[in-house]
Order: sequence, then C-alpha cells, then structure tokens
Amino acid sequence: MYSKEIQKKLKDLGVEIGDSVRVKRGDQVHEGILMPKQELGDPDAIVIKLSNGYSLGLKFKGSELEKLQGHKGIGFKSSEEKTKRIAGKPLISIISTGGTVASRVDYATGGVDASYRTSDIVKTVPELGEFNIDSKFLFEIMSENMTPEHWKEMARAVYKELKTDTKGVIVTHGTDTMHFSSAALSFMLRDLNKPVVFTGSQRSSDRGSSDSFINMICSANFASKGDVAEVSLVMHGSSNDDFCYAHRGTKVRKLHTSKRDAFKSVNDEPLAKIFPDGRIEMTNGNYRKRCDGEVSLDDKLEEKVALIKTYPGMEPGIFDFYIGKKFKGFVIEGTGLGHVPTIEGHSVISRIREATKAGIPVCITSQCLFGRVHDFVYANLRKEFEAGAMFCGDMLPEVAYVKLMHVLAHSKDLEEIKKMMLTNVAGELNERTPVLE
Amino acid sequence: MYSKEIQKKLKDLGVEIGDSVRVKRGDQVHEGILMPKQELGDPDAIVIKLSNGYSLGLKFKGSELEKLQGHKGIGFKSSEEKTKRIAGKPLISIISTGGTVASRVDYATGGVDASYRTSDIVKTVPELGEFNIDSKFLFEIMSENMTPEHWKEMARAVYKELKTDTKGVIVTHGTDTMHFSSAALSFMLRDLNKPVVFTGSQRSSDRGSSDSFINMICSANFASKGDVAEVSLVMHGSSNDDFCYAHRGTKVRKLHTSKRDAFKSVNDEPLAKIFPDGRIEMTNGNYRKRCDGEVSLDDKLEEKVALIKTYPGMEPGIFDFYIGKKFKGFVIEGTGLGHVPTIEGHSVISRIREATKAGIPVCITSQCLFGRVHDFVYANLRKEFEAGAMFCGDMLPEVAYVKLMHVLAHSKDLEEIKKMMLTNVAGELNERTPVLE
Repeated sequence: MYSKEIQKKLKDLGVEIGDSVRVKRGDQVHEGILMPKQELGDPDAIVIKLSNGYSLGLKFKGSELEKLQGHKGIGFKSSEEKTKRIAGKPLISIISTGGTVASRVDYATGGVDASYRTSDIVKTVPELGEFNIDSKFLFEIMSENMTPEHWKEMARAVYKELKTDTKGVIVTHGTDTMHFSSAALSFMLRDLNKPVVFTGSQRSSDRGSSDSFINMICSANFASKGDVAEVSLVMHGSSNDDFCYAHRGTKVRKLHTSKRDAFKSVNDEPLAKIFPDGRIEMTNGNYRKRCDGEVSLDDKLEEKVALIKTYPGMEPGIFDFYIGKKFKGFVIEGTGLGHVPTIEGHSVISRIREATKAGIPVCITSQCLFGRVHDFVYANLRKEFEAGAMFCGDMLPEVAYVKLMHVLAHSKDLEEIKKMMLTNVAGELNERTPVLE
Repeated sequence: MYSKEIQKKLKDLGVEIGDSVRVKRGDQVHEGILMPKQELGDPDAIVIKLSNGYSLGLKFKGSELEKLQGHKGIGFKSSEEKTKRIAGKPLISIISTGGTVASRVDYATGGVDASYRTSDIVKTVPELGEFNIDSKFLFEIMSENMTPEHWKEMARAVYKELKTDTKGVIVTHGTDTMHFSSAALSFMLRDLNKPVVFTGSQRSSDRGSSDSFINMICSANFASKGDVAEVSLVMHGSSNDDFCYAHRGTKVRKLHTSKRDAFKSVNDEPLAKIFPDGRIEMTNGNYRKRCDGEVSLDDKLEEKVALIKTYPGMEPGIFDFYIGKKFKGFVIEGTGLGHVPTIEGHSVISRIREATKAGIPVCITSQCLFGRVHDFVYANLRKEFEAGAMFCGDMLPEVAYVKLMHVLAHSKDLEEIKKMMLTNVAGELNERTPVLE
C-alpha cells in the first residue's frame, strides 16, 4: 500500500490503482497504468507500467498526475468465477498463482489482479470462448517466491477441481520455478484421472512477441482433449508462435532466461505437440491415460531438504551447516556421472558417510542435467556409493529435491527411502541401457 | 600402495602393477590388468581392470593370482619427454593432468601412468606422428578433484610451454570440471599468442565407442594450425566420430553425463569445427588471433568464493555460514533472469544487502544457463540490484565463480570489482540486444 499521504492525494485526484495516468516531472512526461506499491519500493514513489512493458518508479512529490482513463472496475475480492455453462462446450478449470502470465492480463485490462476474472482472460484470449471455464485465484506470487507451502496449496486446489466434472485443470504460474511446482504436484497428486497442465509466459502481452496467448490456448486444448492423465507443462515449442510442447512435469527444465521456448524436456521426449488450432500430436508413447479412477491427494512434504551443487574448491562444511540446522535430507548435484570431490580439504565422501550414519539420505544427481548418474564406472563413484549415496539415475536435480521432500514425509528408514527414491512414480526415472554402451 | 603383505606376495609371484593377470576365486575367474590400490579402497583387496573397462576389487586372501603377460616396463619417473625433432613437423606441447583420457592410455599400454610418455600417446594415436611433441606429466587427478591450486599449477605449466617455440599447447584433463579449468586459464593467461587447447575423453579407449583418438587428433591440429590465441576446449561435436568443436574456454559447459558430444557452447557459437583430417572451419568470427606478442601469467586467485544456487524452499542462512567462514565473494545461480527469493523466511535480498555492506561482492547469474540475466525487467530484480547485486549478463555461473576468484585477488573495492566483473576479458561476456526484444 502506498503511504497514507499518497493514498489521500490519489483519492483527491480521483485516481485509483489500475487507472491510465499521465505523470509530468519537470519536462518529462510518462504515461502508463498506475500500479500498486512494490514491497520494499521507495515509500515516496509511485509506480507506473509504461506501454513498453517496463515499470517505472517516480517520486510522487514534484510530480503532476493526471487521470487519462479509469480501470475497468475490477476489484480484488473476486477469487472464484464460473462462466455461464454453454452446452456442448468442454469445461476446464484455471487456477491462477501469479507470474508474468498474470501480469499480462493485468496490463491488458488496465487492472491489477484482473487476470483472475475469467471474463477478462476470455476477453484477451477469445479462443477460450470455446470452453466453459471455472477459474480460481489462488495467489499472486512471482515464481522465485514459491515455497513448498505453496506447492501444497496448489495441490489441494487442483485436487478440488479434479473432483468436479471438469475435463482438466490449468495452473498458470511464473516460469522461473514452474518445473519445481510441476514436479511437486506430480508426486502429490496420485492416480491422476485427468490432465493437469502448468502454463505461463516468458513475456508479458504488452510485448509484440508475447507467448501467453498461444500457451493459454494450447493448454486449454490439452487440458480438455488431451489423453494424458499426468501433470504436464505446456509452453512454446519453438521461437515461433506455431506450436507448444507438453512436457512431462518431472522431466522438464527452464533452459533459457528469456526465449519463448525456454522449457526443454530433459532425458525424455516431450509428451505431445499441441497446435493453436487444437490439434494434438503425441510425441511420446509412454504416458498415463485419462481414466475414470479416483485421484488421491498426498500433500505431505518434509521441507528440511537441501540441494547442494559440488564444484572445484567447494567448502564441504556446508553439509555440517545443514546438519546443524536439523536438515533431514540432501540432494547433491555432482559433476559428470555424479562425482563429488574426494580430495583432502574438499572431500564430500566423509560427509556422505556421516549423514548416512545419522539416518540422513544423500541422493546423487548430475549438474550436467542431461544423461544419468552411475555408481560404478569410476573408483570415486564407488566410494560415494559405499559411503551410502543413493544414485538417482536420470532424475533431474530439482526433481530429486522435490521427490526427497515427499519421500521423507513418508518414511524415515534409509533402505525404504532409497527404494522409494529409485522407484519410478511419475515418469521422473527412466530405466535405460547403461550409461557407457 | 597395497599393504606390505600384498606387496610381498605380489613380489613373490613376480607380478607388478600393470601386468595382465588371471584371478581365480572359488569357481570364478577374472582376467585383466592389475591396477594400483585405490585410495580408501578395501586394504585387503586388489583391483583389476577387466576387458569390459570396469575395475573390480577382489579380496586378495583366497584368490589365486597368475601372471599372464608383463606390462611394458614403463615406470613412474618420467615426467617430461620430447620426441626426436623431425624437420618440417610442427612442434606441439601436451600437458597431462589426468582423467579418463589418461586412463585410456593406461589401459591400452597395460601400464598405469604410461599415458604420459609421448611415445605411448603416439603409439595409440598414430596420427600424432605428424607432430614433434614435448610432453609433460603435471599430475594425475580425476577432474572432480581439481581445485583452484591445480588451476594455478596448470596455468604455470602452460605458460612455461608457451614461452618455447611450440606452436600450441594441449592440456589433457578429466571432463567433469574441464570447463572450470578452461575458464580459469582464460583469466590467468593474458595476452595469449598461441592456442591453448583443453581436451579429454568421455569414454576410455577400451570401449568400442571411445572418443579419445579423434579428440586428441583434432586438438593437435587446432593447437598447431589453429589461428585462435585463446583457451579453447576441443571435444566431439556430434555423437559420431566425424568432427570436433573448439569451444571458447569461457563459454562452454558439460551438458551430458556420458555422450561423446557432452560439451556445448553456451551463449556463443563454437569457435571452429575441426575434422580428423586436419581441416579447420571457423564457425565464429569473433576471436583473438595468433600473434607475436608476449603472453603474461597472472595466476593470483582469492579462493574464498562460494557458488550458491537458489531454489524454492532454500535456506538463506547459507550466506551467514559463508560469511562466518570469512568468504570474500558470492556468485548466485538465480532462477530465470537472475531472480532470488524475496519472500519472508527465504529472502535473499537482505543477505545481498548485508554482504554488500560488508564489502563482499554478490554476482548474479542464471541456473537457466542459456540467456542472460537482467536487473530491470521485474520489480524483484530491481530489489536485488538496489541491494547491491552485480548482474553478470550472459556469463555462465561456473565462469563467474572462477572470474570472481581472479578479480578478488586484484581488488577489494566493490565498485572496481563490479567494473572488472562486467568488463569482458576472455569472451566470457557478450554484449547483446536486451533480453526482451
């Protein structure tokens, strides 16, 4: 919230958040949408979102503010909405959690949380008019701020939707950590019967090259017509607006900071190609089919898990730090086939042994991301194995991190934990030929 | 070294390390090369390398050992060697540091450190007979055990070779952390006048699909004839044995645990395609040319730098741990455009601010690896920037980590450090169009 002083002056001027405004400062003039105050932002500044998509903070004192156009009167209160059911149209559910895909619609409507009104989503993506939509505003979080608590909330909200007669559920999400969330829901929603589709956008819609519309249309088609009863992540498949890929929620990673096709399937084929006209082309024969069974929710997580990357010169005392903080599990992002330093002064082997002795599982993944770890090829790998490390095949480090949280909430026994970690649950683990064929 | 008891028995049997042996245990028979004892290995076991490439530990007691064939009499002493100079052949230098590419030649010759004898390298890679070769055995380290101290040793050894009339220097190296070492030497060898080429192999030569020969031949051609006076990394360019890529030493990363073409250029084009027949096809117009200038060595490093990856649910106290350990710099692998958590309980913003206030630089990179970080697009990024974070463009996290070590050894002033971090020195930083074009 802006300071009381600013709030009062805005009220006097008849300006509300979401309004189009012109701000003069000296000889500079800026036009844009008045945004809410940013946490930790300058208390004396107002923020406007310019037509080029950037937000700008401007000292309120010394600025002349003029209202150009009111916002569309969309309040903060509406958190659930249903479109009028039209016979023959498939019903889908959209759960909003924040991120760029949300800020897009904000800007398009001139509102701030307007995105969560189905009518506004449909307005900006007219193709969504082909669907009956139940929507829910869950929260508005940029994805760098997602936590395991948010994953649980998401899982519960999706679970609730899945129990209705919806054809499938879409979760809109910031892109940065979307692959952590899709993995988390892959483990927390068991016996899935319908598609659960994560989507977002890399660029807000005020940019000519926005990807949000196509991502949303493809997601709606995949959620309503797709045959995949798994958690997937649907985003641009190329730098053009020609198709999206549905990636398996446990086999995908953001691999570019800004490109529209930033997400790539890792160690697996994408599940499907989805075209904006609704065509779906399966690209992976191995998936769980839509079915009549009952989905179940298993949202327990042990959050005291650390993800630790090894590198030359690393300080192995980091393990002691986490153990001191009562952490219950480690996932190591080793080098290559899953190596960790074994050299004096940097050796991680004794830490793996100590953690294991203390009943703390240590899971091995690779910072190469592509390929699988292996406990046998080199002598140093066997040292790790003998010290108690659990080698997680071709599981991504981020996915192993999330999975270990879930597993630790269900067992404290190292042998059982190992068995659970190395048993495929949601496509996170592929058994393939040995690494050195 | 094996226990005195085992050593004595081996001596009685006339068996030396490197010999071909047959070991009977009960009704099992294994044949292979007797390897030296592994550090931390079972003190009562001997290790043999089987013809399938795997090493096997076998209890010595209860085993019957039989010598099949002696090793080629290559000792441990020879650490430098020169081929007989033949007029008209170009002179190259090979510095061995260990890794699979070394263990390959071990196996091929039946010796253990035999690889470091030029005559043996030439024997297994006959095409190297086209070169005069000065070789140096620097150390035998698997690359997960490289440390900044090793980088310094390497830089000094390469510097020494560059001062001779060699055409170029090859460093053979384990693959796991080869890209850290190539980055380190990129910063420590200034004003390069000749090619410095890192190479290794993903698979030992006892596998049909070994990549070591082609990598070695292409490296020799690039070192002797290449026009690139930079540190590069030459490895397979595809899964076939048809060509290698020379990647810039600061723009490359291991992106597969086992494939021959595991290394990929990131945020840059490879420098050149090199064919086994010696052809070199430049693929990047932007490089430093071979020249007559004097190379200089700047091998100072401040090793108290930590590389920290952020993720949902991370424990931000990790920064306090490192500060308590008197660390002098941080490189953060943020999400997306360089985000860190800003949410209560997990916020890294206050840690960035505290570190900066204490004179500790905090550099931002992205775990997306591809693309560049940006300090402006989102409000949370500006919070980081305002807290003092230095956004490192399209620099890889691993490269920023190495560079910050080098920079910190030359300045303690935050503004100067920032300027040095954000000034391109060895191709590590590309200025490109803004991220959201």
